[in-house]
Amino acid sequence: MSRIVMKFGGTSVANLDRIRAVAARVKREVVAGNQVAVVVSAMSGVTNQLVKWCQELSPLHDAREYDTVVATGEQVTSGLLAIALQEIGVEARSWQGWQIPLSTDDAHGRARIEGIEGAELIGRMARGQVPVVAGFQGIGPDRRVTTLGRGGSDTSAVALAAALKADRCDIYTDVDGVYTTDPRIVPRARKLQKIAYEEMLELASVGAKVLQTRSVELAMKAGVRVQVLSSFDDGSGLGSDLPGTMVVDEDEIVEQEIVSGIAYSRDEAKITVRHVPDRPGIAAAIFGPLSAAGINVDMIVQNISADGSTDMTFTIGRTDLPRAQLTLAAHQGEIGYAELLTDPDVAKISVVGVGMRSHTGVAATMFTSLAAKGINIQVISTSEIKVSVLIAADYTELAVRALHTAYGLDVV
Amino acid sequence: MSRIVMKFGGTSVANLDRIRAVAARVKREVVAGNQVAVVVSAMSGVTNQLVKWCQELSPLHDAREYDTVVATGEQVTSGLLAIALQEIGVEARSWQGWQIPLSTDDAHGRARIEGIEGAELIGRMARGQVPVVAGFQGIGPDRRVTTLGRGGSDTSAVALAAALKADRCDIYTDVDGVYTTDPRIVPRARKLQKIAYEEMLELASVGAKVLQTRSVELAMKAGVRVQVLSSFDDGSGLGSDLPGTMVVDEDEIVEQEIVSGIAYSRDEAKITVRHVPDRPGIAAAIFGPLSAAGINVDMIVQNISADGSTDMTFTIGRTDLPRAQLTLAAHQGEIGYAELLTDPDVAKISVVGVGMRSHTGVAATMFTSLAAKGINIQVISTSEIKVSVLIAADYTELAVRALHTAYGLDVV
Repeated sequence: MSRIVMKFGGTSVANLDRIRAVAARVKREVVAGNQVAVVVSAMSGVTNQLVKWCQELSPLHDAREYDTVVATGEQVTSGLLAIALQEIGVEARSWQGWQIPLSTDDAHGRARIEGIEGAELIGRMARGQVPVVAGFQGIGPDRRVTTLGRGGSDTSAVALAAALKADRCDIYTDVDGVYTTDPRIVPRARKLQKIAYEEMLELASVGAKVLQTRSVELAMKAGVRVQVLSSFDDGSGLGSDLPGTMVVDEDEIVEQEIVSGIAYSRDEAKITVRHVPDRPGIAAAIFGPLSAAGINVDMIVQNISADGSTDMTFTIGRTDLPRAQLTLAAHQGEIGYAELLTDPDVAKISVVGVGMRSHTGVAATMFTSLAAKGINIQVISTSEIKVSVLIAADYTELAVRALHTAYGLDVV
Repeated sequence: MSRIVMKFGGTSVANLDRIRAVAARVKREVVAGNQVAVVVSAMSGVTNQLVKWCQELSPLHDAREYDTVVATGEQVTSGLLAIALQEIGVEARSWQGWQIPLSTDDAHGRARIEGIEGAELIGRMARGQVPVVAGFQGIGPDRRVTTLGRGGSDTSAVALAAALKADRCDIYTDVDGVYTTDPRIVPRARKLQKIAYEEMLELASVGAKVLQTRSVELAMKAGVRVQVLSSFDDGSGLGSDLPGTMVVDEDEIVEQEIVSGIAYSRDEAKITVRHVPDRPGIAAAIFGPLSAAGINVDMIVQNISADGSTDMTFTIGRTDLPRAQLTLAAHQGEIGYAELLTDPDVAKISVVGVGMRSHTGVAATMFTSLAAKGINIQVISTSEIKVSVLIAADYTELAVRALHTAYGLDVV
C-alpha cells in the first residue's frame, strides 16, 4: 500500500472523455490498494478564456477578483472528476482550497502556500475516499480565493503530497518524462529514469518546461518524490509500473552520470554597455535601474579594463529588451557609457549534472566540442552543477546535438 | 438615500459589453447617493453547459458535486462585474455564498436559505463599497457549496434585500414589468404599476414567468418591495424612475382593481376516471397513488352521484400524463373504475385579483364572457383571489382576449 498524490494537467482533463480516462486511471491505483488524492487543473483553454475576460474588462484588474474568476476553472474539473469517479464506483469528493483549507499568503495572482490542513483528508483516504482537490488555488488571510500563478497546480500537488506524507507525487502531463534534451532537436535523446531535484531545477529554469520551478523547489525542500508521467500512454498500468522519470534526492541516484542533460533557451537577448568608467559602483549604476524596472539580468561578464574604461555584457529576457534600452538610455549620464550594443539573436546552451561537483573537465569538453563545430562562445557562466554559454541563435540545434554526443548521452 | 439590491439575470450579463452596461447602471445608483448591493446570475448559457456535463458523466450524479460545478457560473460573473465596476471608479468586491455566509439547508441542488449574515455587507455599503454577490448559491451545514435550484438568483436577491433591510429589490430582466396578460396574445395588455404579492404568486404559478415563485413568497413573508425592470431600456435612468412594476403588499395599492390580470397555461392535461363507486375514501384511492408517484394534481371536480357511482375529473401537468395513466391502471382494482378518459389538449385560464375578496360577480362575468364566445368550460376552480377554468386549448387566445376586455383591462 502506498499513499499517492496524482496530478492531472489541463490537456489530461480537456473534455469529458479524458476526464473518464483519468477516473479509470485513478480507480486502478485504488483497486491496487493504494490511498489516492488527486489534484486537477482546469480543462485546457478555460483558464486562458477567463484571464482574457478579466484583461478585456480592465488591463489593471484587481488581482483578488481575477483570482475569484480564474479559480473556477479548477473548481469545475474537481466536481466533474468526482462525479466520474463515483460513476465507476470509486468514493470521491471535491475539495476547494478554502475547504481544506490550503492557506496562502495574500499575494493574489501569485500566492505562496503557507500551510495545508491534511488530517481530515488523511482520515478520509484511510476510509477509502479519494479527495479530488482543485489545483492552483488556496485561501488567503483575507478569507478570499487566491491563485498560485501559472502552472500552480504542480505546486499544489507537491505541497499536498508533503502535507499528506505521500510516498509519491505522480504528475501526469503531455510528455512521458524528462529527457536528456529536447527530443525534437535530438531524436536520440534519452528519457531519464531518475533526475536529482537540483538538476531538474536547472533544466526547468533553462527551458525544459516539464514541471513548474516552484514545485521542484518545494519537492526538494520537503523531500517529496515526484514522478513525471504521460497521461496519454495506453493507460493500462499503475503509476509505479509506468516508465516515467522520478525526481528525487541525488543520494538516491546510484549510477551518477556526470552530465544529465543539455538545455537551451532562445528567449534571451544580449546587451553590451561600451566604454564605461572602470570604477567602484559601476555595476550598481547599471544593474540598479534595471532591477528597479523589474528586469531580470542573467549572465554577466565584465571585460578587462583598458585605459580606465571597460565593457559590460549581460543577458536579459528578450521581451524585456525595449524596456531595458529605454531604462539604460535614461541613466546614460550617471553610468557614463559611450554606446549600447544589443543582440536579440542569441541562445543560451546549458550542460547540467550534479556529477560535475566531483568531476573536472566538464566545461573543457563543452568548449572543445563547440569549437570543433566552429561555434563562437559569447558569454560563459557557471554554477556548481551547470555550465552555460551564450551563442548565436542560429547555432542552437547544432550546439545541442554536438554536446549531447560529446557527453555520451545519445541512445545507442 | 435608499438602500437597494439590484439583481441581473443571465441575459443581462451575457457578455462583456452587457456586464459593462450593468456596471454603468449600478454606478448611476451609487452616484445618486444610494447604497447598492448587486446579485448576479451566470452568463446565459453557462449554467446549461455545466449541467449538461454533470448529466453526461452520470445521470444520477452526486448533487453536492453538481452544486460545486454549477455554482462557478455565478462566481465568474461576480468577479467580472466587480472588475467592471472598479474600472469605472466604483469601489466593489465579489462575494460568494460561503464568504458572506449565506447559509442554507443541506438539500443540495434545491437548497433553502436559512440565514444571511448581513452586518459586514451593511458596514461596507455604508462606506461606499458595492458588494457583488454570486446569486443562486450558499453554503450548507456540511460546509459545501449549495445551489437554490433553477431561477434561484431571484430568491438570493430577495433574501439579501431582507437581510440588508433594503428599501427595494430591483430585479432587472428581459421583460420590462408585469402585464395584465401576455402582450403577445393581447397587444393592448397594460403594464401594471403595482401588483400585490399574492396576485404575483398566482400569476407566476399559472404561467406568467417573470419572477421565481419562491422569491415572491419570500418577499411577501419578509415584506421586501420587489421591482421588476427591463435591463434593455435606454439605460439612462435610475431604478426609482424606471417604469417597471412594483410587487408590494396589497395595502400599498390604493386604487385596487378588481381583476389585475389574466393568466393562461397550456401545460395541462385532463383525466376523467369514469364510474367509480361513490363511497368514502374513493378520492384517497385515486389521488394517493398519484401523490406517491410524485404527480401534482391541480383542479379537481367530482360529478354528482348517479346509481351509486360518480366520475372524477382532474388536471395534471401534461408531461406527467403517461406516468399518471400507468399509475392509475396499476390501481384499477382498488379504485374500481370503468374507464379512463384523457385529454392533453386543454388550457387553464385564470382571472386574478385581490379585489375579488370584496367584490362579487367576478366569476359570473367570466362565465358570461366565455359563453358569449361559444367557449365551453370543462372544469372550474376558485380561490380567494383567483377563478380558473379549463377549456379546449384551441380557444386559449380567444378566451384571454375576451376576458381582458370584459374586465376593462385593455389599454384605451
